[in-house]
Amino acid sequence: MIPTLEWLPNGVNFLDQTKLPLEETYVLATDYKQVATVIRDMIVRGAPAIGVSAAMGVALGVNQSHAKDIPTLNTEVAVICDTLAATRPTAVNLFWAIERMRQRYSALADANATIPEIKAALITESRLMYDEDITACKAMGAHGAELLPKQGTVLTHCNAGALATCGYGTALGVIRAAVERGHKIDVFADETRPYLQGARLTAWELLHDNIPTTVLCDNMAGSLMRQGKIQSVIVGADRIAANGDTANKIGTYSVAVLAKEHGIPFYVAAPLSTIDPATAHGDLIPIEQRSATEVTHSNGRQMTPNGAAIENPAFDVTPAKYITAIITERGILRAPYEQSIAEMMKQAASEPELAAI
Amino acid sequence: MIPTLEWLPNGVNFLDQTKLPLEETYVLATDYKQVATVIRDMIVRGAPAIGVSAAMGVALGVNQSHAKDIPTLNTEVAVICDTLAATRPTAVNLFWAIERMRQRYSALADANATIPEIKAALITESRLMYDEDITACKAMGAHGAELLPKQGTVLTHCNAGALATCGYGTALGVIRAAVERGHKIDVFADETRPYLQGARLTAWELLHDNIPTTVLCDNMAGSLMRQGKIQSVIVGADRIAANGDTANKIGTYSVAVLAKEHGIPFYVAAPLSTIDPATAHGDLIPIEQRSATEVTHSNGRQMTPNGAAIENPAFDVTPAKYITAIITERGILRAPYEQSIAEMMKQAASEPELAAI
Repeated sequence: MIPTLEWLPNGVNFLDQTKLPLEETYVLATDYKQVATVIRDMIVRGAPAIGVSAAMGVALGVNQSHAKDIPTLNTEVAVICDTLAATRPTAVNLFWAIERMRQRYSALADANATIPEIKAALITESRLMYDEDITACKAMGAHGAELLPKQGTVLTHCNAGALATCGYGTALGVIRAAVERGHKIDVFADETRPYLQGARLTAWELLHDNIPTTVLCDNMAGSLMRQGKIQSVIVGADRIAANGDTANKIGTYSVAVLAKEHGIPFYVAAPLSTIDPATAHGDLIPIEQRSATEVTHSNGRQMTPNGAAIENPAFDVTPAKYITAIITERGILRAPYEQSIAEMMKQAASEPELAAI
Repeated sequence: MIPTLEWLPNGVNFLDQTKLPLEETYVLATDYKQVATVIRDMIVRGAPAIGVSAAMGVALGVNQSHAKDIPTLNTEVAVICDTLAATRPTAVNLFWAIERMRQRYSALADANATIPEIKAALITESRLMYDEDITACKAMGAHGAELLPKQGTVLTHCNAGALATCGYGTALGVIRAAVERGHKIDVFADETRPYLQGARLTAWELLHDNIPTTVLCDNMAGSLMRQGKIQSVIVGADRIAANGDTANKIGTYSVAVLAKEHGIPFYVAAPLSTIDPATAHGDLIPIEQRSATEVTHSNGRQMTPNGAAIENPAFDVTPAKYITAIITERGILRAPYEQSIAEMMKQAASEPELAAI
């Protein structure tokens, strides 16, 4: 089990993903502001992991409150939630998780729960979300495994693995599930510039599980496809619009276009918490722009000349038409996505418990 | 004038492209073996520049020979040529330039030239090839400039500039020519992993000429195209097969597929010395595999976990169907390329002098 994040009596403990793969070190966030920093600085990253981290941040913040009455606590909860929501704009799981914690808080306060009861219940809620996340990943794996080749290669971009979730992973969870079911899979991992989540994180966690992994530069995937070396593509998602358009790590869109050109299936694996029914289509998804130094500098050394302008969007949008299927914890969505997504969201609302697979 | 390479009385002087953009240092190769090392280690790179470097390497090797008779010199010339030819396998200009020097040598020997005469003539020949390369780049610029937008953006991949030639550049020469003719062009430069020729070299030389340049990671180009931010693509070439299939820096093929998907013209700029009529199609072009450490390490620090396999092909092949036009020093080639290339090669053989434009 890869310890991406963990609730501890004295805070939330994070595996420091900026130091992987060569150093396995931890950062203990002892208050909610530190959790916000950990998210913003990408010590933890990956849409599902960010969501649960923020939920634990809310629980931690409320637990450390000195408020003596609910009106005071209301104000503090608003500040805590706003601080955590301001960390990263694209992954909708962040807002989903904070909203779920806010609603749980409101329900408890409306039911006249005491402040100690609220504190305990919010910790329980965030830890429940942690467990649910792992359950959802395992369910995605069970649903998606058969889509992957019995024997062959799978390309993935960025890290949608145990390190992007509370464990097991979304896209990498589907690969894990296929391998557990006897598929012989060789993974090609795009290195994923500029942050190298593929080279550093995906390769690290797959090799940890003895899944053979080849790292390539992002610009090599097309050539490998043309040579018939890639049988399937699977990626995660940071936000899926109501029509299936998917925001994911920058470069995902290029991989999707290349997959289409070569007739290779292109799968997205994500929990329902990544679907944002309030966003009609992908061009409405806010795309985070990160610091130019992620592109210009490498291990502290400047690689570009002074004066060059820099592009550094953290995500791009893949229109639904490029997506062969979306693998969720409740089953596989196919086009037309507007309809299949709406139906699954409705079913999930009416039967909140995830059925056993 | 950017001093990519220069014949000096005591050897061939190279701008060290591994140190750019932050250090402008030079490596003086004082014998032909050092020229071979300079090519192999990518102190000089770019198909046309490699060709002229190898020619100067032959001239240098012959000039330093102690041979007293032609049979002895014949043997030495064969070793010199083989050593230089073994440096890099993909760019055909290398073999073209060595072959031209070999033929010049044979013609002189057959004509009973003295050894001092042969030495002087080979130096002259290699310096003529240097001048011809710059003339060809300027001619490509003149032919290609009107293909670029009057006002707009041009994406380029790798470095096909002054640094890849004896001066002015192929793809960047066309951009320079368009700017000189009043076009307002903003260049997007793919950083070009793993060696970062775009981030380090293209940005450096375009900013040197005050052409506005934005560096992006290779995986960002598709998203920019989808947003309508790229109007045109132009790249260089390392070898063009008889049917127009083009080997160029790894990642070029992906850019070509993305350009096609977005209806953006995709141009290749290369001198005729890059066309290899002996290679029928692109899949017959040998693709150099380079060291894994170019991918795994960054400024001396390992970025990938131990145990990960690595892909590092230096080039890929873009089939002719993706290429809108090939810009040469004798004019613009269009599909069907098999025919247009054959006609131009025939014309070039019958009228070796480049016509004034």
